[in-house]
Amino acid sequence: MDFDYSAKTKELQARLLAFMDEHIYPNESVYLEEIAANRAKGNAWIPTRIIEELKPKARAAGLWNLFLPKSSRAPQGLSNLEYAPLCEIMGRVPWAPEVFNCSAPDTGNMETLERYGSEDNKDQWLEPLLRGEIRSAFLMTEPAVASSDATNIECSMRREGDEYVINGRKWWSSGVGDPRCAILIVMGKTDTEAPRHSQQSMILVPTNTQGVNVIRPLTIFGYDDAPHGHMEVELKDVRVPVGNLLVGEGKGFSIAQGRLGPGRIHHCMRSIGVAERALELMCQRLNKRVAFGKPLSAQGVWRERIAESRCMIEQARLLTLKAAYMMDTVGNKVAQAQIAMIKIVAPNMSLQIIDWAMQAHGAAGISGDTPLAYAYAYQRTLRFADGPDEVHRNALAKMELA
Amino acid sequence: MDFDYSAKTKELQARLLAFMDEHIYPNESVYLEEIAANRAKGNAWIPTRIIEELKPKARAAGLWNLFLPKSSRAPQGLSNLEYAPLCEIMGRVPWAPEVFNCSAPDTGNMETLERYGSEDNKDQWLEPLLRGEIRSAFLMTEPAVASSDATNIECSMRREGDEYVINGRKWWSSGVGDPRCAILIVMGKTDTEAPRHSQQSMILVPTNTQGVNVIRPLTIFGYDDAPHGHMEVELKDVRVPVGNLLVGEGKGFSIAQGRLGPGRIHHCMRSIGVAERALELMCQRLNKRVAFGKPLSAQGVWRERIAESRCMIEQARLLTLKAAYMMDTVGNKVAQAQIAMIKIVAPNMSLQIIDWAMQAHGAAGISGDTPLAYAYAYQRTLRFADGPDEVHRNALAKMELA
Amino acid sequence: MDFDYSAKTKELQARLLAFMDEHIYPNESVYLEEIAANRAKGNAWIPTRIIEELKPKARAAGLWNLFLPKSSRAPQGLSNLEYAPLCEIMGRVPWAPEVFNCSAPDTGNMETLERYGSEDNKDQWLEPLLRGEIRSAFLMTEPAVASSDATNIECSMRREGDEYVINGRKWWSSGVGDPRCAILIVMGKTDTEAPRHSQQSMILVPTNTQGVNVIRPLTIFGYDDAPHGHMEVELKDVRVPVGNLLVGEGKGFSIAQGRLGPGRIHHCMRSIGVAERALELMCQRLNKRVAFGKPLSAQGVWRERIAESRCMIEQARLLTLKAAYMMDTVGNKVAQAQIAMIKIVAPNMSLQIIDWAMQAHGAAGISGDTPLAYAYAYQRTLRFADGPDEVHRNALAKMELA
Amino acid sequence: MDFDYSAKTKELQARLLAFMDEHIYPNESVYLEEIAANRAKGNAWIPTRIIEELKPKARAAGLWNLFLPKSSRAPQGLSNLEYAPLCEIMGRVPWAPEVFNCSAPDTGNMETLERYGSEDNKDQWLEPLLRGEIRSAFLMTEPAVASSDATNIECSMRREGDEYVINGRKWWSSGVGDPRCAILIVMGKTDTEAPRHSQQSMILVPTNTQGVNVIRPLTIFGYDDAPHGHMEVELKDVRVPVGNLLVGEGKGFSIAQGRLGPGRIHHCMRSIGVAERALELMCQRLNKRVAFGKPLSAQGVWRERIAESRCMIEQARLLTLKAAYMMDTVGNKVAQAQIAMIKIVAPNMSLQIIDWAMQAHGAAGISGDTPLAYAYAYQRTLRFADGPDEVHRNALAKMELA
Repeated sequence: MDFDYSAKTKELQARLLAFMDEHIYPNESVYLEEIAANRAKGNAWIPTRIIEELKPKARAAGLWNLFLPKSSRAPQGLSNLEYAPLCEIMGRVPWAPEVFNCSAPDTGNMETLERYGSEDNKDQWLEPLLRGEIRSAFLMTEPAVASSDATNIECSMRREGDEYVINGRKWWSSGVGDPRCAILIVMGKTDTEAPRHSQQSMILVPTNTQGVNVIRPLTIFGYDDAPHGHMEVELKDVRVPVGNLLVGEGKGFSIAQGRLGPGRIHHCMRSIGVAERALELMCQRLNKRVAFGKPLSAQGVWRERIAESRCMIEQARLLTLKAAYMMDTVGNKVAQAQIAMIKIVAPNMSLQIIDWAMQAHGAAGISGDTPLAYAYAYQRTLRFADGPDEVHRNALAKMELA
Repeated sequence: MDFDYSAKTKELQARLLAFMDEHIYPNESVYLEEIAANRAKGNAWIPTRIIEELKPKARAAGLWNLFLPKSSRAPQGLSNLEYAPLCEIMGRVPWAPEVFNCSAPDTGNMETLERYGSEDNKDQWLEPLLRGEIRSAFLMTEPAVASSDATNIECSMRREGDEYVINGRKWWSSGVGDPRCAILIVMGKTDTEAPRHSQQSMILVPTNTQGVNVIRPLTIFGYDDAPHGHMEVELKDVRVPVGNLLVGEGKGFSIAQGRLGPGRIHHCMRSIGVAERALELMCQRLNKRVAFGKPLSAQGVWRERIAESRCMIEQARLLTLKAAYMMDTVGNKVAQAQIAMIKIVAPNMSLQIIDWAMQAHGAAGISGDTPLAYAYAYQRTLRFADGPDEVHRNALAKMELA
Repeated sequence: MDFDYSAKTKELQARLLAFMDEHIYPNESVYLEEIAANRAKGNAWIPTRIIEELKPKARAAGLWNLFLPKSSRAPQGLSNLEYAPLCEIMGRVPWAPEVFNCSAPDTGNMETLERYGSEDNKDQWLEPLLRGEIRSAFLMTEPAVASSDATNIECSMRREGDEYVINGRKWWSSGVGDPRCAILIVMGKTDTEAPRHSQQSMILVPTNTQGVNVIRPLTIFGYDDAPHGHMEVELKDVRVPVGNLLVGEGKGFSIAQGRLGPGRIHHCMRSIGVAERALELMCQRLNKRVAFGKPLSAQGVWRERIAESRCMIEQARLLTLKAAYMMDTVGNKVAQAQIAMIKIVAPNMSLQIIDWAMQAHGAAGISGDTPLAYAYAYQRTLRFADGPDEVHRNALAKMELA
Repeated sequence: MDFDYSAKTKELQARLLAFMDEHIYPNESVYLEEIAANRAKGNAWIPTRIIEELKPKARAAGLWNLFLPKSSRAPQGLSNLEYAPLCEIMGRVPWAPEVFNCSAPDTGNMETLERYGSEDNKDQWLEPLLRGEIRSAFLMTEPAVASSDATNIECSMRREGDEYVINGRKWWSSGVGDPRCAILIVMGKTDTEAPRHSQQSMILVPTNTQGVNVIRPLTIFGYDDAPHGHMEVELKDVRVPVGNLLVGEGKGFSIAQGRLGPGRIHHCMRSIGVAERALELMCQRLNKRVAFGKPLSAQGVWRERIAESRCMIEQARLLTLKAAYMMDTVGNKVAQAQIAMIKIVAPNMSLQIIDWAMQAHGAAGISGDTPLAYAYAYQRTLRFADGPDEVHRNALAKMELA
């Protein structure tokens, strides 16, 4: 047992932290102002110049596609345990991961293509994704049914000759707002008569296919997350060649399972990064603000919250790192309970700490003047994304009871 | 001791509920769409037609200025205990109070004018406010200092001949976004050498006075609350006649105190209304959604939350009604502890229930498709408005320890 | 709506408070020392002299059988709303209710006899109970089954001629340890084939009947509650005349229901009394103890807890008083949700406050040197007694969902 | 970074688990019955035969003095990281640590003697302690002052010639009840004029010294913890030779600091063991009990609690193991924040889980029929022992703010 990061990890952390200091933090307001300016000019749905400028710099700094597991295409790939602490650092600024080509849902989509795509699929979509030229989306959740139960999915995929015809309605299709989003991975049912977990399939749908209709952007609290966006998408008689089906009919559920493990590590480590930042901002603010004759940081109630925050962050980080370690050493399946745990723990932890940090900032905390309110809104989505807390707690309890 | 509403209250409740059913709920989406349309056309900062259409109807239905305490101008005025349950009902829809000319900060401003304004002040500003022709704002909070401690205020009011010259920077000036907002009540310091609670004064500043510069709207979790808005306002060499000063120099703190009691009852009752609505939406959703073979409402974890919600709402309502009763019978001063309690209890209660309701709705819960996310954002501001929880808990504890 | 106690209630409160000051608080240690001395002499299971001395004084002071609802035997009987605040006061000292002949389970048993007993039953058992000469117990809970579901009960009652033959095993039979405990009300099944809620019956069993075997006292944390005691009792071929059956076969469940309402009000008001006392002790201690240069009461974390305690107590009291009011005005049935709420809220509230009070006292708080640890232990039982929290939350949620 | 136990640890865990299965669990009721029998015979304050029988077996199994860090007297000594998981296992049964000569306060006292005692001190007291022939106590806490602030201590140690004369009153002197308790380590002040942290000294006082008067046993939620006991002890003109002073005058505070680190690891790991056991019992019970037609374990509310329990235990264990790792690698001082964290986290975690487990057991859970109620009572003491939560949170926050 050893609680120290490896030398390799420490070196990457140092490099990444330096990049954050040099290129990310100084551009936080630049990013927001660019979007505000675009919006004022009438279209917030265009990629930002600032991210495009920073991407080549990250690539030059050797901080590109860090998420990629070791494979033939990525001989330098990192293990989950190596990547996790980097994810935490990137998570401190919401748009930072994209600079390193490490942002959701692209990372999960790239992994899915790498593992389950044909060579043709990879050439056509994986390569430009890895180069950061296009973006992608993952269409699973549907407005009409409880998505916590994946067997509820209603989107239909009917084979007709050499094509699949897809009909359905999806929402929370994140990233579809971005004009660079070229490829969609769609979950649907190819056979509603098959056993419960063999009805679903996954298929690649180019965004510009006829019948792919973007209905509207959804908001998270009052944020539309432009230019990324979370869209409602209608799929109406969408036709794609059979070669676009990943692996084979009925494999959708198991692909989804395989995809989830690493994605959860990433999400949770980013939650930890956000929580660290919130705690940092909270401490700074409390040291600075004076009320009733002394800095807020001298008041016991804030001391309690700072201490609790530190305890919660440390615990969540160790739990997540252990989950990453287990995925590396014993695999997704055996690490299942551990992964369920982090999914439950991390967003609830970060929400609590961000909430305290907002309270420490007074009204500024919920405004656009700090990154806290947006962070809260975004973290709040993680209590639903990939299944709500309740489903994960239920699953974890079943394992425990057995 | 009697826990039943009076006949008069029941009659008013019935009338108000009928109006809500007939005119408010059916127009909830109309209101949002009108603002969205205005925004798309380039200006969200104009009053909505729908509210203007409904105001005369409310007046005709005898549901106008209900907040007004009994006085020479309002012989039919309601007691706090009579008005409180009506406030709860109006609170179920965020923009409903304006329809009845019962929305913050106008109600508090009208009470302030009624109690502390000169006859001239009343004729000029109170009358059109009571008729719902103009709106008003209350400028107290400042970006540079901890507003939880009112003695921190830095805005200066210097007398020069027959005028006061005002310089300062305020924010969270709610309602200033509305073009109808004609009058500002500004808190500042006329004498920084006076005893701590006698330095502050309150003064009337017409919005169109030279030197009143609206800097920008602030956002609450991404919402700009147009057309109402929460503004940052610069006051630069603003000159108003001395007759605009309320009561006299050094009375600002005590006016603020007097203003707070009824305002807190209103806020808290609206929080209860919001919480009731969230619980209602939660139950409906849980009854409707099916996962893993049964409606969510059959799952124990949701039953626990529903039960807790009901317990929390009932308790908060009784506490607030008792505070209203005490204000009516023994006055603000003696009711001080009771008012501190509701200020602590009500927003925390509503936030918890809204959060559960959002969770019950899955991702829809944090989007614009339900009123929940906005309700959460708005309720979250109430944990700072008129002093943060921490200050009220501290004050309450001191009374208890004494 | 009126939040003031009636003149009658205020007068009774004043009289009761005076009696507490004069006779109960000064004897708190006397009571504990008497039991300790009895235990040291080899038998803690004898009634205390101190309570026997105080009973006639309470009777003389007109503070006797206050719990009795108005009836032919009690023309001066109090309403639930009148009795509730007295219950709160008595609840401040665990053994005080017995002094006023108002202690559980005797009060519930007396009400049960009053409502459901024959005239013979009343003459034989109710009269001496009302005079405080004998005591009683209520045998419902069984060790072998989940008592939260009353239909699980296994104790059998078989009619043989003019007798019922009872076989079963009960536990948590409170009060059976007291040698004065002369009569047991036993819940069992007379017909296991009947509909689920018509299988149960209640019967009177004199404690000295052959086959009534007291197995052992149970402990609550480390307390055996001598001389009252919570006993495990074997009923082995116990024979009683058919006249001992209350009302009729199959009425057990509905008698149990009727019994529960007032009992819950009493329990909850006593919980509130205990919480008030814990808060009082906490404040005194915090004002007195100095650490790191200032009294603990000046530290923010304690201020937060004091404020929260006050908020929780006030809310729970109003909720309970409203439940009492509803029982008086609309009856047990309609007040069902309200009664479920107080059962959930009150013990959890008191436990939290007592826990804080213990923490404020340091190690003294969990020792025998303050009444807190015992209070905690006793309040903890109320989260199971008459059904665990979970069952009540479930029932309340069902009403809400309907 | 490596989350696996070392081979050495795994081997020791396996050996210890086997011993628990063979010798400890089967004797849990034997132990309780032996004490009950002793108590019934008039003296619960004698060592149990069962523990004396098991000690030689543990020694023979190589499971003796496992707590000892590597040193000249213990060349096989374990690191903190190696010992911690063993501590967890022993912690599952409250009296198990003594069987392995690993029980508090003896372990801390032995470490103190080893580090700070003279060779004479070691020969006389450390050797028989290591052989498990005598026991010891640590007298620090005083009834008259807030012990959370160590500078409050009032016990005086006045040098007179070759002796120190000690006067003071201590309580919560754990283990003094045991007739084998031969040596006391006493904290007091040798110089009340010295700087705040140099006033205190520690001295060895044989229990049978004249003037050492055991006043009474204290109880913890009704438990007297016989034959171990937590005593109030008067020290009245107690005289011991100057050689009994550890290290030198004024070193008391720093000795106390050095002692605390490992002790906290031990306590916290035992808390984790207790929590694991509570969770185990909870799951067993919930699987077995049926209410309303299905096992309790199928009910959502219990699933939530089981899942939360598992998350909390895993996190607390990782946090504690990391603290042990840091103590081994960077020392007590640098690990200070980490040690504060576990002190805050572990007992609160175990209390929550035990409370749920009690609730799952119904009334049995708070009786003597499960180990849960005693476990709760004992864990509750750990929120005060070695400083209350509030002090540790405050210290941790200060480090964070710096």
